[in-house]
Amino acid sequence: MVGRTEVDLQIFIKRNGRLLLGPGKIYLLREIHRGGSLRTAAKELNMSYQHVWSVIDEMNQAALYPVVIKQRGGAGGGGAMLTDYGKRILSEFQLIETEVQKFLKQLNTEINL
Amino acid sequence: MVGRTEVDLQIFIKRNGRLLLGPGKIYLLREIHRGGSLRTAAKELNMSYQHVWSVIDEMNQAALYPVVIKQRGGAGGGGAMLTDYGKRILSEFQLIETEVQKFLKQLNTEINL
Repeated sequence: MVGRTEVDLQIFIKRNGRLLLGPGKIYLLREIHRGGSLRTAAKELNMSYQHVWSVIDEMNQAALYPVVIKQRGGAGGGGAMLTDYGKRILSEFQLIETEVQKFLKQLNTEINL
Repeated sequence: MVGRTEVDLQIFIKRNGRLLLGPGKIYLLREIHRGGSLRTAAKELNMSYQHVWSVIDEMNQAALYPVVIKQRGGAGGGGAMLTDYGKRILSEFQLIETEVQKFLKQLNTEINL
């Protein structure tokens, strides 16, 4: 037994050739969707709130429609939620992941390394 | 016309769960194969010779067999070549790229973002 060599694929979403979403941003969107808070997502990801917001802001501008909206005010502050388009991106991404996993399974039976 | 959103995939090769090759290392292997020199490859990639060698050394140890061998001495120094296994990795990677491109083309007709 000499160990197992296998292919893995990482998914990126581009818009007009510009990177819109990669593994890090998808993770962030999922955290926001789950927790409803930028502040909590930032903490989970060990990032500053400011950094997380700048990432989101950039994503909102690069996407066809905004992906996340902030909800200002309240005691805790930092509330955020996915827009309908943001939710569509998440569900579409999940379908893509499923397709990619199926393809990978097949690909990994074919490689010889 | 609202622009084009599309999926892209990056290929990674893992061995026993550990990352063996990603886009950067493949690029490096191709440069070494083309130029026969670590020093030239380092220059092309704007990296130090030492850094390139440490990347290669790590790859050689992670792979089933060594991928690159150094050829010491000579006026220019820094000679290097791919082993037979290194060449097999490059040709296998090219096949994987072709498969991935075909799959991506299909996937991109299906997404709705």
